[in-house]
Amino acid sequence: MSELTGNCLVGQSGGPTSVINASLAGVIQEALNHPCIEEVYGCLNGVLGILNEEFIDLAEESQQTIRKLRITPGAALGSCRYKLRSQRDFDRVLQVFEAHNIRYFFYAGGNDSQDTADRISKLAQQRGYELRVIGIPKTIDNDLVTTDHCPGYGSVIKNIAATVREMAADNEALGQNDFVSILEVMGRSAGWIAAGAALAKREDQPYDPPHLIYLPEVPFSKEKLYEDVQRVLSKEKFCLIVVGEGLVDEDGNYISTTSGAQDSFGHAQLGDIGSYLQKLIEDDLGLKARTAKLGYTQRAAARNASLTDNNEAFMAGQAAVQAAVDGETDKMVTLLRTDSDNYTCETGLTPLSEIANGVKMLPREWIHEDGVSMNHQFFRYAQPLIEGEVKIEYLKGVPEFARLAKKRVRKELEPYEFE
Amino acid sequence: MSELTGNCLVGQSGGPTSVINASLAGVIQEALNHPCIEEVYGCLNGVLGILNEEFIDLAEESQQTIRKLRITPGAALGSCRYKLRSQRDFDRVLQVFEAHNIRYFFYAGGNDSQDTADRISKLAQQRGYELRVIGIPKTIDNDLVTTDHCPGYGSVIKNIAATVREMAADNEALGQNDFVSILEVMGRSAGWIAAGAALAKREDQPYDPPHLIYLPEVPFSKEKLYEDVQRVLSKEKFCLIVVGEGLVDEDGNYISTTSGAQDSFGHAQLGDIGSYLQKLIEDDLGLKARTAKLGYTQRAAARNASLTDNNEAFMAGQAAVQAAVDGETDKMVTLLRTDSDNYTCETGLTPLSEIANGVKMLPREWIHEDGVSMNHQFFRYAQPLIEGEVKIEYLKGVPEFARLAKKRVRKELEPYEFE
Repeated sequence: MSELTGNCLVGQSGGPTSVINASLAGVIQEALNHPCIEEVYGCLNGVLGILNEEFIDLAEESQQTIRKLRITPGAALGSCRYKLRSQRDFDRVLQVFEAHNIRYFFYAGGNDSQDTADRISKLAQQRGYELRVIGIPKTIDNDLVTTDHCPGYGSVIKNIAATVREMAADNEALGQNDFVSILEVMGRSAGWIAAGAALAKREDQPYDPPHLIYLPEVPFSKEKLYEDVQRVLSKEKFCLIVVGEGLVDEDGNYISTTSGAQDSFGHAQLGDIGSYLQKLIEDDLGLKARTAKLGYTQRAAARNASLTDNNEAFMAGQAAVQAAVDGETDKMVTLLRTDSDNYTCETGLTPLSEIANGVKMLPREWIHEDGVSMNHQFFRYAQPLIEGEVKIEYLKGVPEFARLAKKRVRKELEPYEFE
Repeated sequence: MSELTGNCLVGQSGGPTSVINASLAGVIQEALNHPCIEEVYGCLNGVLGILNEEFIDLAEESQQTIRKLRITPGAALGSCRYKLRSQRDFDRVLQVFEAHNIRYFFYAGGNDSQDTADRISKLAQQRGYELRVIGIPKTIDNDLVTTDHCPGYGSVIKNIAATVREMAADNEALGQNDFVSILEVMGRSAGWIAAGAALAKREDQPYDPPHLIYLPEVPFSKEKLYEDVQRVLSKEKFCLIVVGEGLVDEDGNYISTTSGAQDSFGHAQLGDIGSYLQKLIEDDLGLKARTAKLGYTQRAAARNASLTDNNEAFMAGQAAVQAAVDGETDKMVTLLRTDSDNYTCETGLTPLSEIANGVKMLPREWIHEDGVSMNHQFFRYAQPLIEGEVKIEYLKGVPEFARLAKKRVRKELEPYEFE
């Protein structure tokens, strides 16, 4: 493969995580190691920043900023949920790439974002524009196929497991019998996130909180909920429930949705499933219940990120650049578990088209037969992902995160007119 | 004052905080320094543990456990919301104290708990039973009078301010215009907790998130909410709102309550005010909004506790023992700010009767005239309280907290029959 000289562009897409900026830091640091990469640009707000030609010069950022970026939540370049809609959109992308001599494109995101990257890559090939496109996995949902796990997942479940431990200490202290505590977590179509709460249990202490985990994989029924809660409370003073937002009934319909609302990708907007369970438990079982809903705070909790996850996110960013420089294109970086007994992780590559069309579900056989807890296979899988703690800098008692200087790159084209 | 020799008893009451166990550790450590204190007992579940004669021998706990106790959330002895109801209840307390030669009683809690301690103390005096009673302030609500602030408050607002910073990084990354993000926090009758979110702002950056703080002190109206949100969104891409659960309307009625439910002290049970604001904003302004409700996780977040608060909680426990040994009784330990320019903190003492009947409101003059932000007087007050971070031990990626061995003290009396 001949050396390809030109500029690189990196973008972030989809819901932020507490480690997506670690991947960005990995891309920047590695890109600067390769003379064939001349300028290191970032596009603001994903593909929207490409259409609008809104690029910043990442090589101008201070080294101190890039160091802090590794532990900064959110998506420092800005994200977007805009979907490239038409051939005109895709043509504009290539036009902008040509205008700025972009030859390397790195895109961190989930399924939809990898699909976008795949289409850009294929169009460039079709038009004979030499471009190397490498996707970087990013999603707390952990639902990308072919990768062992996704950067962002380890941190969100570490935060949730730690939160469950803390909540359990609080709930246990209340000294009330028959108290029900509910923690609502994210996870639209798979139970990966809710399942991670199981890591709050001590080894060989299956009755530790969380006592019940409700997953989208297991059809929900009120009767089962009532039985489950009563079974727990016959043995324990309180019942700590973790529930994923995407709970469905026997017919596959979401239990709780906000009046048919959809996001721009056509996904249903989910309502307050935690409060819904609380109301059922209070009204039908006559028990006292309380709910916490972590919302976006769970994926932004950089203070509580997993060091393993953070390091792997950084490594995925570096690996994307290395692969592209080595001539790879139209692939996504994957994380490979090389030794499952003594956890180690390496990176691999998979065609983008394989990622875009697949969804990795939580294996049904990792769910305990009671439907509300996880078995040893899940623990074996997930435990290594939450190991280690990041060190955050504080100023005046609050975390100090990176803020990019965002030196703008001069625009070369006329503004894009959206349809 | 003559030396009083006998046993000491310590109890915890009311809602747990992330530092109430630091006060317990302070009591235990200091009690062991004084030969006049023979046994160091803890009562399980506050006054309930006294009525039921459920005592544990705290001197039997390992030193390692007591060290970990300093950073363990919840209330390791168990708390309660039982209110001593009748003369019979109080008589039983004295009977139990006599049976175990309890001469020192330390009770950590909020207003109701200090009132309980005061009544026990006064009854003992009246009956000529020599007993020294010292209360230890504990409440995330920060509403105890005569103390500059309450142990537990600094940690809860540090956690909330840090959460707002993280949420803001996430919200900013979304790249959506006119997005509204809502964080619901505790605070039934005063806005101390919600106000603390203001510490997420950088110095001299009044337009930093949180953009709007809704406090129980400022009567809520929908019209004001709509104006506030629109004003913020005319300048910012997103609007981050922090709302205290105890919001009231012009007539002083709670905006959101769970169908007239009350707790055992007759306090109204509050509903989901965050989701309520979300619905108003979505339905009436047509904007996209999302809510997070921290619930009990906010007061249990030991990982994110303030080192200043943790140290002061420990010091309050030590000071309680020192005061009692010095002959003081029927008082609560207070925290005194000795130098407001260069923050330092010492302990003082106030009669329990003064605490029990007062509620310290958030000063109206610390709220900015816009009604939705805090002025420099609040920052000056609150900023020192969140300084410093605690160091938590982790095992397998989750925090390891103390678990007391709870060696039971032999019961001397017949079981108590509750009315």
